[in-house]
Amino acid sequence: MPGSGQPGSGQPGSTPPSGRARARDLGLAPGTLLPGPANAITDVPGIRVGHATVIEGTDVRTGVTAIVPDRLVPEGRMPAETMPAGLSVFNGFGKITGSTQIAELGTIETPVLLTATLSVFRVADALLTYLRELRGGEQMPGTLNPVVAETNDSFLSDIWARPITAAHVRAALDSAAAGPVAEGCVGAGTGTGALGFKAGIGTSSRLVPLSGGPVTLGSLVQANFGGVLTVLGVPVPRAPDPGPPSGLASGQNVPGQQAAGGSGRPPRPGSGHEDQPPPGSCVIVLATDAPLDARRLERVASRAFAGMARTGSNFSGNSGDYALAISTAPASAAPETAERPTAAAGSGLVSGDDLDLLFQAAIEATEEAILNSVFMAETTTGFRGHIRHAVSLDSVLQITGRKARSGRM
Amino acid sequence: MPGSGQPGSGQPGSTPPSGRARARDLGLAPGTLLPGPANAITDVPGIRVGHATVIEGTDVRTGVTAIVPDRLVPEGRMPAETMPAGLSVFNGFGKITGSTQIAELGTIETPVLLTATLSVFRVADALLTYLRELRGGEQMPGTLNPVVAETNDSFLSDIWARPITAAHVRAALDSAAAGPVAEGCVGAGTGTGALGFKAGIGTSSRLVPLSGGPVTLGSLVQANFGGVLTVLGVPVPRAPDPGPPSGLASGQNVPGQQAAGGSGRPPRPGSGHEDQPPPGSCVIVLATDAPLDARRLERVASRAFAGMARTGSNFSGNSGDYALAISTAPASAAPETAERPTAAAGSGLVSGDDLDLLFQAAIEATEEAILNSVFMAETTTGFRGHIRHAVSLDSVLQITGRKARSGRM
Amino acid sequence: MPGSGQPGSGQPGSTPPSGRARARDLGLAPGTLLPGPANAITDVPGIRVGHATVIEGTDVRTGVTAIVPDRLVPEGRMPAETMPAGLSVFNGFGKITGSTQIAELGTIETPVLLTATLSVFRVADALLTYLRELRGGEQMPGTLNPVVAETNDSFLSDIWARPITAAHVRAALDSAAAGPVAEGCVGAGTGTGALGFKAGIGTSSRLVPLSGGPVTLGSLVQANFGGVLTVLGVPVPRAPDPGPPSGLASGQNVPGQQAAGGSGRPPRPGSGHEDQPPPGSCVIVLATDAPLDARRLERVASRAFAGMARTGSNFSGNSGDYALAISTAPASAAPETAERPTAAAGSGLVSGDDLDLLFQAAIEATEEAILNSVFMAETTTGFRGHIRHAVSLDSVLQITGRKARSGRM
Amino acid sequence: MPGSGQPGSGQPGSTPPSGRARARDLGLAPGTLLPGPANAITDVPGIRVGHATVIEGTDVRTGVTAIVPDRLVPEGRMPAETMPAGLSVFNGFGKITGSTQIAELGTIETPVLLTATLSVFRVADALLTYLRELRGGEQMPGTLNPVVAETNDSFLSDIWARPITAAHVRAALDSAAAGPVAEGCVGAGTGTGALGFKAGIGTSSRLVPLSGGPVTLGSLVQANFGGVLTVLGVPVPRAPDPGPPSGLASGQNVPGQQAAGGSGRPPRPGSGHEDQPPPGSCVIVLATDAPLDARRLERVASRAFAGMARTGSNFSGNSGDYALAISTAPASAAPETAERPTAAAGSGLVSGDDLDLLFQAAIEATEEAILNSVFMAETTTGFRGHIRHAVSLDSVLQITGRKARSGRM
Repeated sequence: MPGSGQPGSGQPGSTPPSGRARARDLGLAPGTLLPGPANAITDVPGIRVGHATVIEGTDVRTGVTAIVPDRLVPEGRMPAETMPAGLSVFNGFGKITGSTQIAELGTIETPVLLTATLSVFRVADALLTYLRELRGGEQMPGTLNPVVAETNDSFLSDIWARPITAAHVRAALDSAAAGPVAEGCVGAGTGTGALGFKAGIGTSSRLVPLSGGPVTLGSLVQANFGGVLTVLGVPVPRAPDPGPPSGLASGQNVPGQQAAGGSGRPPRPGSGHEDQPPPGSCVIVLATDAPLDARRLERVASRAFAGMARTGSNFSGNSGDYALAISTAPASAAPETAERPTAAAGSGLVSGDDLDLLFQAAIEATEEAILNSVFMAETTTGFRGHIRHAVSLDSVLQITGRKARSGRM
Repeated sequence: MPGSGQPGSGQPGSTPPSGRARARDLGLAPGTLLPGPANAITDVPGIRVGHATVIEGTDVRTGVTAIVPDRLVPEGRMPAETMPAGLSVFNGFGKITGSTQIAELGTIETPVLLTATLSVFRVADALLTYLRELRGGEQMPGTLNPVVAETNDSFLSDIWARPITAAHVRAALDSAAAGPVAEGCVGAGTGTGALGFKAGIGTSSRLVPLSGGPVTLGSLVQANFGGVLTVLGVPVPRAPDPGPPSGLASGQNVPGQQAAGGSGRPPRPGSGHEDQPPPGSCVIVLATDAPLDARRLERVASRAFAGMARTGSNFSGNSGDYALAISTAPASAAPETAERPTAAAGSGLVSGDDLDLLFQAAIEATEEAILNSVFMAETTTGFRGHIRHAVSLDSVLQITGRKARSGRM
Repeated sequence: MPGSGQPGSGQPGSTPPSGRARARDLGLAPGTLLPGPANAITDVPGIRVGHATVIEGTDVRTGVTAIVPDRLVPEGRMPAETMPAGLSVFNGFGKITGSTQIAELGTIETPVLLTATLSVFRVADALLTYLRELRGGEQMPGTLNPVVAETNDSFLSDIWARPITAAHVRAALDSAAAGPVAEGCVGAGTGTGALGFKAGIGTSSRLVPLSGGPVTLGSLVQANFGGVLTVLGVPVPRAPDPGPPSGLASGQNVPGQQAAGGSGRPPRPGSGHEDQPPPGSCVIVLATDAPLDARRLERVASRAFAGMARTGSNFSGNSGDYALAISTAPASAAPETAERPTAAAGSGLVSGDDLDLLFQAAIEATEEAILNSVFMAETTTGFRGHIRHAVSLDSVLQITGRKARSGRM
Repeated sequence: MPGSGQPGSGQPGSTPPSGRARARDLGLAPGTLLPGPANAITDVPGIRVGHATVIEGTDVRTGVTAIVPDRLVPEGRMPAETMPAGLSVFNGFGKITGSTQIAELGTIETPVLLTATLSVFRVADALLTYLRELRGGEQMPGTLNPVVAETNDSFLSDIWARPITAAHVRAALDSAAAGPVAEGCVGAGTGTGALGFKAGIGTSSRLVPLSGGPVTLGSLVQANFGGVLTVLGVPVPRAPDPGPPSGLASGQNVPGQQAAGGSGRPPRPGSGHEDQPPPGSCVIVLATDAPLDARRLERVASRAFAGMARTGSNFSGNSGDYALAISTAPASAAPETAERPTAAAGSGLVSGDDLDLLFQAAIEATEEAILNSVFMAETTTGFRGHIRHAVSLDSVLQITGRKARSGRM
């Protein structure tokens, strides 16, 4: 059966699920800067994204998403370099491996993986295995600092099963590609929900006209947090009594087993599927080819939360909200460890008004990425029969007073 | 001449300037929680606010605003206590005295004063003098940690003149009162601007229905930052060519000298009054009677930036954005210094869903306080003939599609 | 063969290895406060410690050490509580799971495990498994935040083998006991070295005469850092040409295979055993029954680095230096999550001079714990034939001008 | 009358007070790296130091010390540049203006001034005035961030008098010079005490043989903290009953009025002169010409506390302990503000083993600077007849078993 429990079962990157659409295709794009060609984090040269969607039986709806910088995983070789990185923690109630080293050294050494809360450790371990195998027989470095973050998809998936294997991690990494990125119920977004609706992975990018020439900034989110969905300032409250989903408005995603569909299946008594989803989290990864050191990247990262605020997040104390920004610029910062030196520290770091433009891009791209994560997700039934409903895009258009631009709808 | 350069020349708290109105009176209040009776930080029992507006000649448009907790300045006595406090710094490009001690001990020992950037030190020194005088002949404590924050009002006021005196500080502190709070071009907001328009001081409050009973949270802002004014999600861009202000739309505030009015006066050639205002800052003070320790207060404080995000801030790197939250609850935290012990640490600190409600209140009250700071401010002419125009409330209503609720307009 | 590769193969807690002794038994105890009965972190009521020593073939010299608070792992039940905790990071070049949540909430939810650098993730995952099994069929909490820290023992052990299994983790946890604690080459200290010599696990405690009555503070270290061993202010430099160890001065620890002994074995050519050990790290765990909230615990934790400074650490940039402090006092802080509420926040938190006494205890106990970690460790041969020599206690006594107090020597 | 209340009344930099000596001249220098020619922070090219000692009547024993980088105050001009800076706060119970901006931008814009606790604000304001006057008629920058830190010298000086004037500040800045630096009871050290004895200002430097060539690192301290004086590991406890000071052992410093001498004067009954000195603080300023960005400078700064630990600090919770490190290297970091751009960001930043050498230098120079601050200070009588006794250098030599190297003694 296709897609069920198999590693790498993401949708093709370029086609929205039936009845779903990206915010920009609905005429609902925030901000004033223009997006890159794929309107995705992969518009940043040297950044690839891969997913492994993990769906098993009725209780597992989860996965892994990999953000892979070419510089750290060149073909067939171990990471030979570090990249400047800045982490901003808005609310630290979550898990992210490698965080203290990023804070101390301002660098990452591995791709960034997103997954489900209790799978963080298996995924981090699998990332070590993967990188070791890449290197083949060569000597390994003294140690390595895998970066893996998570959100809690326990409403739709059995987190204590910790179902993600090294094969899934390998599939996400190996499938990482440039170009369009699959969004919604895919990879680490398979089981997440946000702002009252099913959500998942979303991404967006901005072309940033710096004084020294244009650069690109992209954002990718694993959206799993509370609040009231707010689309360009207009609240889209959750329907009080969500009936069976139908038609275009709320696409279905009954993954891996048709019979378990959310529409026709009566709730098991006592199955808890009426439960409120637990407070979630939001992990945001930003990448840019602008030359930025770790300090500036940390400042860029913090601006992502302004984008998140505009989507209606309630910033619950139980939500682990993290933003990590990295720069692919070749010499934008010197690492501080003797083990992995690079030639020279950065010159021409972005400052002043140019830096403010990157901040604006981080805000806009993150707001749009979160909207995409909600708009592209389909209604999903999972653990204990719980259902998270997709938002009706018809309703969104109606409430916001827009008409769809795109013929896709 | 009344009001000109005299300490304490704030407007009466309860009457908006001619042609201005608060957001809520325009039907433009964000959020779902209800405000307190004055819709001001003074709705928190034990919190008073006072202003000293300092206007001198053509070049000084500034002032001091004091947030005074009764516990720290009881009648005729030196502070005998500390109060739990948490500071969240979104962008630290600014000045706030006392910040490292707040971070270390989680307490404040003095009222919180807001003023103009380079006047911070004279104001802090004057606060020490004031508190010493309160104590009269009694022995003073070993030291004291005044808390003074600022924004940069240099577009309308000569900051290097540092015109604020001990008398102004005393006036702000002595005039501190409960009840309605003057907003707009008053106290520390006299010379500030935000989101493309003249702004100033704004405040708002929320009644928070905690499981253990209702509490109040209030926010007061000194708004002086960049971005695009966004009212309940609707952008209100700055008019490209602001003509002479007239009528209700942009109330005038030609303080202290009629001849210097913004309307009829031709710009001095080379006077620079066409200059862009420099990047500013935002200082946010939150108070609550909910029992919170410093850790929780810091978390509450950080949520204020989500409210700021929703008003359209661009979170420029040149903006010093600070949020300080304090709790008036009697025993909400034990101070850690030997010198000023209190009996017992807090019990029944707010947690979980109740804490999330306080977060929501911080977001909502701060968003509304910023709107008030803009809506209540009047067009002001100042240093070098620079003009900051008030937003036209007619335009705001038109753009947002609302009609004014209030007869005041 | 006993002790070889078997989980839980720690030495009995109360007997030093042949020819080794604790600092205090040599008359070399720092500070003025008195130790508790076992001079160990287990002197704090409710704190147990267990080790699993993992020795396999010639290349694996590593293990796990568990610090287990009774409150978090009561008999046969899942953790039902959190405990206040404060983390201080002196140099964040290391890995510690759970750190952002500790920083945000000020609590831990699980025992604290120490291990080898790249095994952190398998150990964290195994800790989840262990805690789930404890709970049996009962419903699990939404998520859980395992706390696992590490140092890099790659000089003596093949870190990429990641040899630590769930069985080892279970053995460390199950064997956790009150009373004397095995030190030196045991558990997570099996393969570590510090200050130029073989080191490992060390512990010490202090009785602290607070004004409200005596409390206990204990420190346990996994010592693996650079510098010049300094004993009560006297430098004990590494011998320039360490010959074959013999006699009392440098006890042997040729674990698991007699033939690989450090004494008579000629170095394999090209085996790299002459290599400098890589820069290491130091993980310090402090526990106390004094009522402290997370803020105070963080301040206590930071003082441990002053004890570390006095032992001669060079605080290399490549050393991950972490101190985590926890309080077992029943109501010393209210957790902030809705999921795991406790009745009441702390009262009577320690302040002022009493807090300074706890700081002193943290400094003294950590200095002594580090000395113990070096003095109790035996010369060890491991990965690629590398040898770390134990310090000669005879030399230490000679250089410091002391005579051993104890007949054990 | 020389030295009494006059600005700039520091001792000549090169002559110790009668009967006092620097640690190195006593053969008591810590560490292995060599000092620079003056063994002072001024060995770093481009760093000058000036003092203003403020002694008035019986109750004022205080002053200002200025650390002046040439780059920020070139002859007759306003600061046109920023310099990379890193601040490390061990215990934030103190006051330091400008701290949040240093943390955000990683730069300083002004000289660094040290003074008495409650005078911080007058000194910061005077620094603004001074810099404005330097600039003469030219236009001022938008704002400026003065950096002023303090310790609490209230045992010997009336801090509430806030006696430091703009003239004193000007005197300290104008007298700033390269070469030897006056130590002990001078400038901001006039009234401070540390480790049980009179202390004051101390400084030291290290030549650091980096792989790319030698650089210099210097440390200057304002020592005013508790603990037990520890000289190269040997505790030198305070004499239980300090009799009248005489001879070499405890040089006298009865500034400004001979009759108030500590030796023959009976304590005023009830004058409180038997009081314990209050908990103090330690401010440490590090400078280097090594190319370091703010991140590395912050890491260098944190290592200073290891030097402080070795002198016997108890790291009281009431002590505000700050270390600020700056780099004079021409292009070591790009500032992030539009207002004050520099050409290029740093290249060739120090890393790895070289960075560790700078850490070592920071530890060693700070330990020696603190010893100098104590050894060079003279017994002082001040506020309310309080006396702080100088340590007897004879006793120090006796206890440590050294003989003085120098004929000066």
